[in-house]
Amino acid sequence: MTKVSLLAEPGKQVIRIIYTYEAPRELVWKIYTDPKLTPRWWGPANLKTNVEKMDVRTGGSWRIVQYDPEGNEFAFHGVYHDVQPPERIVDTMEWEGMRGHVLFETVIFEEFDGKTKVTNTSVFQSVEDRDGMLETGMEGGVNESNERFAKLLKEMQDK
Amino acid sequence: MTKVSLLAEPGKQVIRIIYTYEAPRELVWKIYTDPKLTPRWWGPANLKTNVEKMDVRTGGSWRIVQYDPEGNEFAFHGVYHDVQPPERIVDTMEWEGMRGHVLFETVIFEEFDGKTKVTNTSVFQSVEDRDGMLETGMEGGVNESNERFAKLLKEMQDK
Repeated sequence: MTKVSLLAEPGKQVIRIIYTYEAPRELVWKIYTDPKLTPRWWGPANLKTNVEKMDVRTGGSWRIVQYDPEGNEFAFHGVYHDVQPPERIVDTMEWEGMRGHVLFETVIFEEFDGKTKVTNTSVFQSVEDRDGMLETGMEGGVNESNERFAKLLKEMQDK
Repeated sequence: MTKVSLLAEPGKQVIRIIYTYEAPRELVWKIYTDPKLTPRWWGPANLKTNVEKMDVRTGGSWRIVQYDPEGNEFAFHGVYHDVQPPERIVDTMEWEGMRGHVLFETVIFEEFDGKTKVTNTSVFQSVEDRDGMLETGMEGGVNESNERFAKLLKEMQDK
């Protein structure tokens, strides 16, 4: 089973999401950082995802474009401050539909008894930005990403 | 005259510093982003500053090393998420003496009546990290940087 919990205290500018997977860290890391696999789990399933660039290394950049069934485009990009396989990614993210509002993400991968805990801490430039993100209905997107990720993980383990 | 104010509300993970300079924005931007000038104002005057890399463009990286009179080394590095001359820089910073603790900085340059206001908003991964930074005595460093920056600005204006 896969679990996900989302923590966002009122008045703070941070969202913490904790995922738990029944899989070794190396495999979780592999799926998380492989641009070829990203379209299979990143965001809701009804969007088509195109990884334009995803250079997962310290100093690298990324850009991902998603398309909804009506052809609307949603583009995101950022830079990797720090990539320490298979333990840590520190990067930035900006949705191009709201230029100038950037979030800063720290993703920690830890293994316990063959399970992997992924802790994603996103800090925002302001409490307003954080609250705006929560109001987009991100929780649904997080749950859907998590389910898609776990499904892909299962598929890779069953190979 | 130059002015600087530092705002850090208790329990938050952000520090905001506002600088006001009696100079046009283009000149403030030029000094702020010129690697050759950085050693003349970045941090306290008793440290020798070596700009190893400072590629001020979206997706670029930077690394600066400082030496105290005893030869101790203090290194900092980060990446530029966004550089929009002469208006905005969004970047990251990590002091290598405390690996894994990263701050995320948004610097906005605005001109009013020939004066330039520089607003630096640093968000930290946690309130503890933010409070730790305040306890390093950063306020003294900020004041000294600000005075050195203003002096350099005056020198460039008098040219």
